[in-house]
Amino acid sequence: MNILIKNVILNNEKKDLLIEDNLISKIDDEINISADEVVDYKGEKAVSPGFINCHTHSAMTLLRGYADDLPLNEWLFNKIFPAEAKMDNEDIYWGTKLALVEMIKSGTTFFNEMYLFRGCEGTIRAITEMGVRAVYGICLDDSNFEKVKEFVLPQKTDLIDFAIAPHAIYTASEETLRWAKEFSDKNNLLIHMHLSETLNEVEECIDKFGKRPVEYLNDLGFINEKCVFAHSIWFNNKELEILEDKGCSLVYNPSSNMKLSSGVFRFEDVKNKGINICLGTDGAASNNSLDMFEEMKIGALLQKSNDIDPTHAKAEDIFLSATENGAKALLKKTGKIEEGYLADLIFIDLQKTYFSPNFNFISNLVYAAKSECVSDVMCNGKFIMKDRIIPQEKEILKKAKELSVKFT
Amino acid sequence: MNILIKNVILNNEKKDLLIEDNLISKIDDEINISADEVVDYKGEKAVSPGFINCHTHSAMTLLRGYADDLPLNEWLFNKIFPAEAKMDNEDIYWGTKLALVEMIKSGTTFFNEMYLFRGCEGTIRAITEMGVRAVYGICLDDSNFEKVKEFVLPQKTDLIDFAIAPHAIYTASEETLRWAKEFSDKNNLLIHMHLSETLNEVEECIDKFGKRPVEYLNDLGFINEKCVFAHSIWFNNKELEILEDKGCSLVYNPSSNMKLSSGVFRFEDVKNKGINICLGTDGAASNNSLDMFEEMKIGALLQKSNDIDPTHAKAEDIFLSATENGAKALLKKTGKIEEGYLADLIFIDLQKTYFSPNFNFISNLVYAAKSECVSDVMCNGKFIMKDRIIPQEKEILKKAKELSVKFT
Repeated sequence: MNILIKNVILNNEKKDLLIEDNLISKIDDEINISADEVVDYKGEKAVSPGFINCHTHSAMTLLRGYADDLPLNEWLFNKIFPAEAKMDNEDIYWGTKLALVEMIKSGTTFFNEMYLFRGCEGTIRAITEMGVRAVYGICLDDSNFEKVKEFVLPQKTDLIDFAIAPHAIYTASEETLRWAKEFSDKNNLLIHMHLSETLNEVEECIDKFGKRPVEYLNDLGFINEKCVFAHSIWFNNKELEILEDKGCSLVYNPSSNMKLSSGVFRFEDVKNKGINICLGTDGAASNNSLDMFEEMKIGALLQKSNDIDPTHAKAEDIFLSATENGAKALLKKTGKIEEGYLADLIFIDLQKTYFSPNFNFISNLVYAAKSECVSDVMCNGKFIMKDRIIPQEKEILKKAKELSVKFT
Repeated sequence: MNILIKNVILNNEKKDLLIEDNLISKIDDEINISADEVVDYKGEKAVSPGFINCHTHSAMTLLRGYADDLPLNEWLFNKIFPAEAKMDNEDIYWGTKLALVEMIKSGTTFFNEMYLFRGCEGTIRAITEMGVRAVYGICLDDSNFEKVKEFVLPQKTDLIDFAIAPHAIYTASEETLRWAKEFSDKNNLLIHMHLSETLNEVEECIDKFGKRPVEYLNDLGFINEKCVFAHSIWFNNKELEILEDKGCSLVYNPSSNMKLSSGVFRFEDVKNKGINICLGTDGAASNNSLDMFEEMKIGALLQKSNDIDPTHAKAEDIFLSATENGAKALLKKTGKIEEGYLADLIFIDLQKTYFSPNFNFISNLVYAAKSECVSDVMCNGKFIMKDRIIPQEKEILKKAKELSVKFT
């Protein structure tokens, strides 16, 4: 199977792209071969790497708007946890599909998922049916090691890699962390966990272990280039040095951090250390979107405001965190438009007001564009949205509404 | 002319609305009369008051993305001012039309404009042709009093009221401020100006006048309920007391304040004083959107993050600042859906993913929805967008692109 994309704008130039199977096989001024499918964008659409959402909990989209504007503990313990306790595999299947509708429509082609073991089967089915690339981190608790092990190892698909996800240092025991690390090493799996999201987490860690979270994990030999740490707010300089030395990736989750008043990610400090910065939306219960356009803009603005420096978190840096850096963290050859890279591409309608004028395409993507400018989405060499139409959308929205009744 | 709207969702109930001329004349469970136009939304769309953008500079949309991520002085003096100097009346006409395309498509039906006297004619023509309600504050400088006076007084239209806009205390002389106040009193005009946007402005004011900006204006007898102050960041408690006492309105401009690192509006303190809080996007050169959905979300998140309290700037409060409070500031009977109010309405497509589930419509509008959920827009009793189509859009975008070349 090959697809020839004609006359698409790439870095301000009109180009042709040849997609063979799941790869970008050729980029040139003009490619003339017979292909299974030819799409001519006539210079009216630009191509961008699909966004890579490096931290989310998809099925929580079923709880979008269920509890807002509450103190953190009330939100979590009285609202979210009891609602999640009602979610079974089928809810998680439909909740994940609902999330994927929003992700595809806002240009995400690859996401780093973390969710409950209870919904494993539903999550995998949803991702497979929707055709988006994922790393799926199954939440470990202190009693599900063996089940996770049996489940994960035979499941890898073309689209889905697995990660191991000890939720956080305040929920996972030392034994769980050690098991996760060993399992990751042995099976070459990524580790996805929350780290230093709140000041309270740091203070509890110091009380319990006499050291800060990064020191605690480092002393367990836990941190390496396979670790993707979400939120990653409350690090001191010594911790940043450890993280740099070990080569892990950090995920900036600006909307969620702001909505829950968690704190502000040290973007420029982390960048200046050379640590890989990715971007993520977190789940829809604490965002309440899964839209990487919005996340890029909010992420850039928060840094400028917090650091009192408008030159911080530049559009280019934020765009990298939403594309190339995510691919680096998740160890896939995607997030860039070059020959030999995975064909995970979004096509942007330049006839929208956001690109009129168009002095700087990346600036317009980050600061002006809204998700509706994404007309077509390709993942792994296949179109999964054309002209903003996702075939199953209506059924998914209807089902999600029906299922949400159980939480009221 | 009357329009009957059937089966639209209002406060979670299916209602019929009768629009007669430019007013909402009747709201009931069922209205059965013959009307000039009948629109049946079949329970699939919700109605909301159109948004009221209380501070913007429309024509600057031509400079969207022209200069980002720069230090404030470099941005303003080396980039924006020289580019603005090249803008003539015709540029301002097309720039304003471009802005209005984005405003209409994101549900704004009423805006508080501030822009150059040089583009008066173009601004008025653009607003009139696009059919959006406006208060247009013409920028005063120290030499254009008489011209402004002659221009403003005969111009009031059905859609456009005029305001007088001394730009800021650091650009307008005391004489200009006194003239503006007198002219406002005599002709019952609103006053629209920037106030205490940066800490530097406050420090300069103290150096020059020995008092803070609000004290300076108050000692001139300047402040009353006709004043709408944009940005309004750097007030101390004493200044807030004066502002409360005088009954003016303040405009929160979160995206611009963040992008330019200006500071953080004291939302809860201002609210607790009972001062009227409006919301505005500022111009597209410092946002770079004119989208009140985005502004609501960013505005809520910034407060929670900055105050370290997730209960601050609740969805309901932010929604009021984007609707009812704006109408109060601009002295128009709009911003609410009640009989006798102006028919400035937006119709929201509930079949979008943002409303699936729909536990709380206002929360979904503020935290989840993107502007593409606005299907139809009515202003002053007339549909100005249906099914997201604005008749002149293509021509406007094309012209804006052509004109933008002069700034490169």
